[in-house]
Formats: sequence, structure tokens, C-alpha cells
Amino acid sequence: MAQNVYDNPDFFAGYSQLPRQVHGLAGAPEWPAIRAMLPDLKGKRIVDMGCGFGWFARWAREHGAESVIGLDVSEKMVARAKADTSDPAIEYTVADLEVLELPEASFDFAYSALTFHYIEDFGRLVRMAHRSLTPGSHFVFTIEHPIYMAATHPHWWNDEDGRKTWPVNRYAMEGERRTNWFTDGVLKYHRTIGTTLNALIATGFAIRHVEEFAPTADQINEDPGLAEELERPMMLLMSAQR
Amino acid sequence: MAQNVYDNPDFFAGYSQLPRQVHGLAGAPEWPAIRAMLPDLKGKRIVDMGCGFGWFARWAREHGAESVIGLDVSEKMVARAKADTSDPAIEYTVADLEVLELPEASFDFAYSALTFHYIEDFGRLVRMAHRSLTPGSHFVFTIEHPIYMAATHPHWWNDEDGRKTWPVNRYAMEGERRTNWFTDGVLKYHRTIGTTLNALIATGFAIRHVEEFAPTADQINEDPGLAEELERPMMLLMSAQR
Repeated sequence: MAQNVYDNPDFFAGYSQLPRQVHGLAGAPEWPAIRAMLPDLKGKRIVDMGCGFGWFARWAREHGAESVIGLDVSEKMVARAKADTSDPAIEYTVADLEVLELPEASFDFAYSALTFHYIEDFGRLVRMAHRSLTPGSHFVFTIEHPIYMAATHPHWWNDEDGRKTWPVNRYAMEGERRTNWFTDGVLKYHRTIGTTLNALIATGFAIRHVEEFAPTADQINEDPGLAEELERPMMLLMSAQR
Repeated sequence: MAQNVYDNPDFFAGYSQLPRQVHGLAGAPEWPAIRAMLPDLKGKRIVDMGCGFGWFARWAREHGAESVIGLDVSEKMVARAKADTSDPAIEYTVADLEVLELPEASFDFAYSALTFHYIEDFGRLVRMAHRSLTPGSHFVFTIEHPIYMAATHPHWWNDEDGRKTWPVNRYAMEGERRTNWFTDGVLKYHRTIGTTLNALIATGFAIRHVEEFAPTADQINEDPGLAEELERPMMLLMSAQR
């Protein structure tokens, strides 16, 4: 089973205060870039793998989705997501993506935000997602960028000019990475970009767009702290099509 | 016009002594990974963009290619390539890939090794390559990996455990990078992986395989110096199909 750090009280308390949890999609700087990659959601049956508090599910319904199933490993997240909507076309379920099976050809769009880097067996997940989608459907997801995740000690250094610089090591050594984020020993799985792309391609997905998120000049003007995201990508955004 | 550092005498002298120039394809540790990505070359009309001394052109002919046109910006390279073969089905030409136009639908396979990171306008080159290929043809190329190229000062550091660590900064700031390699101020163009993939996709290529080269355990046993390539990828290998 996937580590469920979200139901750890310390983690949940800190995580719930993140701007993207307090303000929803608008609190996530990568959201405009994700939105630009989304297909038209009108009439679509959607699965959201790692739905958290359900921000995307509600947004999708406001933008014409026929139905949304939100899945999350965290009971606390699912409970809060359920409490935040009375929409009968949204259904939230506690589910472990490592073993989840979805009914075949039941969805017209699959979405996932910042979840798959917690999943050990990405190949299995991609094959399951492919089976669950109707032909022509899109699969849009974001993950932590492997540049961000690879190193043993992922934190800023200064180079000889004093420029913020990110360390990369162990890039080709895929597998477990442990970091401290609200709590100790959060378990993630590092994969190269090649592995992620090739898993999609081998399963029958066509790669439609790949974005290594960087903030726009306007975003940096509004929030100068985002400038460091130009130095190294923290997130990888992908669109694939069955 | 692309910078032609290859015809600088200091550069040419140093470059010619690289194992991959002395020993050819077998001297390049990434060659087995490239070879695994190649389609069957039997009967194919091939263009090699950045042919250097012509190692690949000769290998392709030994493996059944109908003809190979090798293009290179360096007169010295082309002269040496010409001197090394008497095969009438191999033609070498001095050409600047920044402005090159190839005849439409004239090739069944396009290849390029460690050349496109010298090219400023990759989008133009990809569109031109697409037009030059027959439908279904593959396009396999290698470039320096953007992780390797991005930083202002690209050289090993040690992290707090003494592990070899590669610096990344300016990743989202695409464009010129100057490095010293056999001579000063070698001009390269940094692009993100996203930009490279999206240029191919937007032009109509399907992405078939992406490999961030890492040596095998056998290769490291034979040449322990290769172990550092596990820490950060130096090369990006791509296969696309028209």
C-alpha cells in the first residue's frame, strides 16, 4: 500500500495551510499552465486520481463535466472533500492507487495533480488508467520534476556567483527518496523523465504536451518568491491521449 | 550561421583525439542505447545531420542502408569523412543546419548525434526535417541533456556527503550558453526537455522513445569513470516518427 502521510496529524495540519489548499486551484502557480493543457470538459466523465480536498472536481463540474470521481488515499482528505460539496455528480472514494482497478472504458478524461511521485509502480497505474479511458480521451497529470527529486539532499546551494543553484545527483538511480515535509520520512519515488514518457508510450498513449513549469513574468511580479522556479523546475506537467 | 568551432585548429586537434572520434561508434558509451532505438535501416535513404567523420554513415551502409547523405558545418570534418570512404552511396556535404533545406519526402530515416544543441532555431530544423522525410519514417537524435547544459558554471560539486553533484540553475531561461571545451567560448543553445518534445509534437512527429543516457553496470565495470554518469544525465536520446 502507498504510504499515507496525509492522515498523519502533523502533516495534515501543515498541508492544510498551503496556499493551494486554502485558496484552491488559484493558489497553485502552475494552474494556468495546467488549464491551458486541459481538453474541453463538457459532458465528460472524469476520474481525478489524488483528489485531495476536491478543488479540481468542483471546478470540472463548474466547467461542464458530466461527472467526477475523486480518489484519494487519505480518509481525512476525502471526508473534507465530501463535506465541501452537495453535488450528486461528484463522488469521492478512499482508494490506494497502487492497487486500484477502475472499470474499463468508463471515463473520458483522467486527471492527477502532484500524486504519482508517491506511487511505486507507475507502469501498472498507467496501464490501468489506459484501460479505464475511452479511445481518444486525454490524461493530464502533474508530478514533482525528477530534477527536483533526484538528489539525496534536495535544497538550494549558491554557485560561485551567489546564484541559487539546485543539486542533482543519483538521477539515473530510480526509486525511493525520503524527505522531511511537515513530517519526517515522507516517501516518494524518483523516476527519470524518460521512464515516465516511455511508460505512457509503451501503454499506447500518445504524448501531446510536456511542460516543465516555470512562472510567467506577471506571476513573478505578483509574487517575487516564484523567481527561483526559473532556476530549476519543481513540477512536470504532461498531457497524453489514449 | 551556426558557430563553426570545429574548424578552429585547437578545437579540431583536441576533438579528433576523443575516444569516439578515434574509435568511432564503439568509443561512444551511449552507442548501444542509440542502436537499440534505431529502426531497421535496410533499403533506407538516410540523412545524417552533423555527420562528423562519417562513422554513422559507414555503419548504416554496412547495415543495409541504400544511401546516406552526411551533412556537417565543418569543412575539416567533411574532408576527413570523404577521405575515409570510397562508397559511392555515401555523399558528404558542408551545410549549415540553421538554414539548410532538404528536398521534400526524400529520406526514410533522419539521424543526428550531439549536434542540435549547437542550433539556435530548433523549431525550424524540426519542420524542415519533417518535410524531408517520407510518412512513417523515424528521426533519431541525441543532444546534450539540458540538465548538463543549463547552469552558468557546469562542473561537479561535492554535496555534504562528498557525493559528486551537478549544479542546475537558469533551467527555464533558454538560449545561449558559452563553455570552454578545447577552445574558449563554445556556443551552445539550452532548451528544456519540454521545448524539444513540444517542437517535435507540434510539427507532427509522434514521440516513440526518450532515453536519458546512463551507463550499464557492465560499462561501468569496464570503465569506472562512467559511474559519474549515474549522478546526472549528460545526453538525451530521442526517437520520433513522422
